[in-house]
Amino acid sequence: MIGIIAGTNRPQSTTLKVAQYYGKKLEQLSIPFTIINLQEMPATYITSALYGNQGKDEQFNKLKDQVKRADKFIFVIPEYNGSFPGVLKAFIDGLDYPGSFRNKKAALIGLGSGTMGGCLALSHWTDILNYLGMHVLANKPRLTKVEKVFIDGEVKDTLLSDLIDQQIQLLLEF
Amino acid sequence: MIGIIAGTNRPQSTTLKVAQYYGKKLEQLSIPFTIINLQEMPATYITSALYGNQGKDEQFNKLKDQVKRADKFIFVIPEYNGSFPGVLKAFIDGLDYPGSFRNKKAALIGLGSGTMGGCLALSHWTDILNYLGMHVLANKPRLTKVEKVFIDGEVKDTLLSDLIDQQIQLLLEF
Amino acid sequence: MIGIIAGTNRPQSTTLKVAQYYGKKLEQLSIPFTIINLQEMPATYITSALYGNQGKDEQFNKLKDQVKRADKFIFVIPEYNGSFPGVLKAFIDGLDYPGSFRNKKAALIGLGSGTMGGCLALSHWTDILNYLGMHVLANKPRLTKVEKVFIDGEVKDTLLSDLIDQQIQLLLEF
Amino acid sequence: MIGIIAGTNRPQSTTLKVAQYYGKKLEQLSIPFTIINLQEMPATYITSALYGNQGKDEQFNKLKDQVKRADKFIFVIPEYNGSFPGVLKAFIDGLDYPGSFRNKKAALIGLGSGTMGGCLALSHWTDILNYLGMHVLANKPRLTKVEKVFIDGEVKDTLLSDLIDQQIQLLLEF
Repeated sequence: MIGIIAGTNRPQSTTLKVAQYYGKKLEQLSIPFTIINLQEMPATYITSALYGNQGKDEQFNKLKDQVKRADKFIFVIPEYNGSFPGVLKAFIDGLDYPGSFRNKKAALIGLGSGTMGGCLALSHWTDILNYLGMHVLANKPRLTKVEKVFIDGEVKDTLLSDLIDQQIQLLLEF
Repeated sequence: MIGIIAGTNRPQSTTLKVAQYYGKKLEQLSIPFTIINLQEMPATYITSALYGNQGKDEQFNKLKDQVKRADKFIFVIPEYNGSFPGVLKAFIDGLDYPGSFRNKKAALIGLGSGTMGGCLALSHWTDILNYLGMHVLANKPRLTKVEKVFIDGEVKDTLLSDLIDQQIQLLLEF
Repeated sequence: MIGIIAGTNRPQSTTLKVAQYYGKKLEQLSIPFTIINLQEMPATYITSALYGNQGKDEQFNKLKDQVKRADKFIFVIPEYNGSFPGVLKAFIDGLDYPGSFRNKKAALIGLGSGTMGGCLALSHWTDILNYLGMHVLANKPRLTKVEKVFIDGEVKDTLLSDLIDQQIQLLLEF
Repeated sequence: MIGIIAGTNRPQSTTLKVAQYYGKKLEQLSIPFTIINLQEMPATYITSALYGNQGKDEQFNKLKDQVKRADKFIFVIPEYNGSFPGVLKAFIDGLDYPGSFRNKKAALIGLGSGTMGGCLALSHWTDILNYLGMHVLANKPRLTKVEKVFIDGEVKDTLLSDLIDQQIQLLLEF
């Protein structure tokens, strides 16, 4: 089971659409997957679920279960202020340690409006996943100037869409 | 005016106590400062203040004003999952861009229970502040095994407390 | 075939001894390995082999062949000035691109006299190997204060030597 | 005195031309500068100057003197294998520690043929300079697809050349 984590809770995000794009690709390959949507985090997450009520928030426990059932992950990471979104890291900070990610495997993709395409976000995120014991696939495509390359739910740049197909193939063999 | 940002909203955090330690040092030097306490973030921050109600959350606007009034910052950064806390980054993601930090100056200190002392957290956080146009002081002390070196509100290791005094002096001249 | 790269050309280095320690471990497991010793780089490497005479330096070609024959790698990385040694990166800069590392696998270990144990070196090096298409094992032990834990060719800290045994096992399955 | 370090010893490098471009800018502002050219490193640097003959290599001592006389630096950093050139780091590894860089100030610029423009190289290099006690200016322009923007010794993109002018101004005030 592959968990696709859409790395922001921003409403109507391109990130979620890219996550769905990966989902469609996996569907075509008959690979079971689940999209982990950070918009489903409880509104009071940073107080209730993260510390006060640890383990007792039903809404967050559903997301935790999604994470537990997956053994491979695809992280779709939009660039916020030069790195990954704080909400994505806060989500990870609330998961059970070390069981959630240890010795599992992940593929990463970055996206951004500028020319970095999440270059630093992907580096930082790799550090974090490695710290948690999760192995990261070397291939990490970056969708720079994402508004120009991802339109109507499709990657319009052939080179990039080939890189993504190759990444998925490598993740399956990883 | 120096803004000291306590980098987590966790109740009873050592982070806040380290922030207060820096405050005491600045007080002794008669330097005006303000502690920016992430526990004062609105409980529903990740939905209301971050996107939906941008600019209209009174509680968050108070924190934003604290940030705007400061021209130098001290970031006290606890290590969470190998990097900075997600909540700290989420806080930054809700500030006005680019006015909040551009061309201001910052000093960083890391703390953690393990042997890294926020080593990667400080590197990641430097990347982010630089991206936002904020200059970072080279001197970034790390409180490794923090429970053993920070006791009753004091840094018990002379070498470390000297490094912190030196860092504050350099920040004032920076 | 596992290539163990001793990440410095410094004479009498602890790095080479740690590489030999890994070699001994692999020998006990009857896994074929080869130690790639940067002391065997040509003295005039930064001029002759790197640019001028590319491909024609017999001494460097031997090292290149060692790299080509291995499909998994162990990088032993001493901390020099907060990161990996320049000579190690220069060695990589002279290898054939992209064939040398693409889609191969690596494990990393850091060592240093201070408290970082190559923490940043390992992060930087992971970025580089990932860029070259090489997958990196999440588990990256750090020998902090290396003079105190690595004595007479042995890791004296049981926790650390267990981490290394576990890392080798995971690399074999990776 | 500003030291401009051309970050590679590759003959006929664009890096050196970008260093000269910065030199021309400083000349127009009547700011004294010196270009530190890694092509002047001794051919046998990685053996003779780095370890064996430390301090006794006349050719390398000239470069060391150039570094000592400067109190601010501009590092022109080409992207090699996803990071800075190994030779640049090897150069730093041979300098006197900690006097060479401590409490001095630096500005960085990255360049590359691809879309990263040295994004990771600049992050890694900032870590290293900070470790050595050197403060780094937040503004770090990146010349992506450098062959298209840097032609005949000039930056052809107005946005980029404005960023560079602004960076130089900020370095002078830093």
